[in-house]
Amino acid sequence: MKQRVLSGVRPTGPLHLGHLLGVIQNWKKFENENAFYMIADWHALTTEYDSKTTIKQNVLEVALDLLAGGLDPAKCTVFVQSHVKEHCEMSLLLSMLTPLAWLERNPTYKDQIQELGDKELHTHGFLGYPVLQTADIILYKADIVPVGEDQLAHLELSREIVRRFHFIYGKKIFPEPQASLTRVPKLPGTDGRKMSKSYGNAIYLSDSPAEVDNKVKQMVTDPARIKREDKGHPEVCPVFCYHKLFNAEQESLIAEECRGALRGCVDCKREMGGKLKEFLAPIYERRRQFASESGKVIEILNDGARKARKVAAETMDEAKEAVGI
Amino acid sequence: MKQRVLSGVRPTGPLHLGHLLGVIQNWKKFENENAFYMIADWHALTTEYDSKTTIKQNVLEVALDLLAGGLDPAKCTVFVQSHVKEHCEMSLLLSMLTPLAWLERNPTYKDQIQELGDKELHTHGFLGYPVLQTADIILYKADIVPVGEDQLAHLELSREIVRRFHFIYGKKIFPEPQASLTRVPKLPGTDGRKMSKSYGNAIYLSDSPAEVDNKVKQMVTDPARIKREDKGHPEVCPVFCYHKLFNAEQESLIAEECRGALRGCVDCKREMGGKLKEFLAPIYERRRQFASESGKVIEILNDGARKARKVAAETMDEAKEAVGI
Repeated sequence: MKQRVLSGVRPTGPLHLGHLLGVIQNWKKFENENAFYMIADWHALTTEYDSKTTIKQNVLEVALDLLAGGLDPAKCTVFVQSHVKEHCEMSLLLSMLTPLAWLERNPTYKDQIQELGDKELHTHGFLGYPVLQTADIILYKADIVPVGEDQLAHLELSREIVRRFHFIYGKKIFPEPQASLTRVPKLPGTDGRKMSKSYGNAIYLSDSPAEVDNKVKQMVTDPARIKREDKGHPEVCPVFCYHKLFNAEQESLIAEECRGALRGCVDCKREMGGKLKEFLAPIYERRRQFASESGKVIEILNDGARKARKVAAETMDEAKEAVGI
Repeated sequence: MKQRVLSGVRPTGPLHLGHLLGVIQNWKKFENENAFYMIADWHALTTEYDSKTTIKQNVLEVALDLLAGGLDPAKCTVFVQSHVKEHCEMSLLLSMLTPLAWLERNPTYKDQIQELGDKELHTHGFLGYPVLQTADIILYKADIVPVGEDQLAHLELSREIVRRFHFIYGKKIFPEPQASLTRVPKLPGTDGRKMSKSYGNAIYLSDSPAEVDNKVKQMVTDPARIKREDKGHPEVCPVFCYHKLFNAEQESLIAEECRGALRGCVDCKREMGGKLKEFLAPIYERRRQFASESGKVIEILNDGARKARKVAAETMDEAKEAVGI
């Protein structure tokens, strides 16, 4: 029996290099017939409910990004959360037995409300985020949830909800899901901060080579290196970060040249940009390919929804039976 | 175009005379092809999630009670809430845009938490009760919701949620649902308090004539009338209340005889019991009939779910389109 795996990504915008290294490549490691990867459009709605962008359009872009990033729908199940109504059902069921206090003390809840201060997020749905997430996981009886560190508190809450379900109904149905944390190489955005759509510093999987060139050209480097003759500090330079990832065999040479002021930032960026485009080329090409086949992505998602629904419906029946509804 | 109507009853136990007069007879007035009457099992779960009674069994009993009480499935749609997954979907959708503060200030929420003090009701699901209820209503675009007075605050909240939906998405999709309050004749339980399963003072639609006799015999009467010779006060006597409803043509004669101590309570009860059994006989018979036809009730509920699902799915599509999911 292969490990059951569930993870998801919110379609709040196109996926970028950070997602590729932090999410997609992580998901690929677990690709098997028991792995379910979800485009979590309901989750997107928790924070984007009043935005004018349509989540539906993002869903297709994200699906393209996932496929371009190398996820193989023949090996795992890629689907859209809202296509499987059981996610709503299980979420409602679990919400009945989830104490408000557990949700209110959730640190992510407080953090996000602070971080997204301009949005009205004191909603019933946003508070219930971890309930929906637990539903997502247990519908597939996932043992393993590949996530980032920021999700550890949610997963602990998921285990608590699962234990409460088992305690109330006197029946063990679900595994207590465990996180699979991967050491993700730190990849800054073009301005040196964390790569994020909202900072406008991201390189997207859908960026054309010209766009990549343009973004690389505008990247910040070691701020202490003002003139060409100033010696550089590669350890604080975002461009060097990229060299380490996409131009690894030159890493020590580049560091040395930078420290000795033997290479300029413009050349250094050009070299890195070339390597980055090499790395991105097959992804960009796969994306173009999938996008050109009319209806192909929708077909993959429909197929994924069918597979997911089958498993989810069975689990839902089992849960309803236990609850007596 | 006939009025669109939605109402529901929670299957927390068998229905009693109070339900018949307060709910079923009210529903019958609105019977038409746009009337949807729901056995609200998800709502039952909000407070009964940890009870050992199975809601599923109650659902069938309540369905029998509704049919016995005269609801005609050929004229309106009778269905079980959990058979139509769109209730969960719409509830999740609405929860995204419902401020917690609206739910927290809901007077019913506070009252019930106080009233059902021994239960742990500080759950996400119980707080979201009015959200689910709004989903129930708007899935059928109901204009009219026949309810009791205790539901007025919920319905006001439903209108607020509907207005917020329209405001955020710039599109009017749903009617603002209006309550239809009916003056229900006050019918006390056998002990003079409000008729309620939890007080153990109810006469059920499923009670046999012998059970009715037994309950009527134990009814309290005017507490000031201790001896047969004491003069009675019919206006405070629960048995007289029943005479007014089920033996109306004798009402003034009985009142007079009671006040003059010309009739004893035992005889008075026997007479009333006879009339009550006359009233209940066709209901009891219909119930027996429906129960004897194996699979009949399930067929009616399946048929109702099909009809309900058709309408609910259309509305859900429209709502998702507006939200952009």
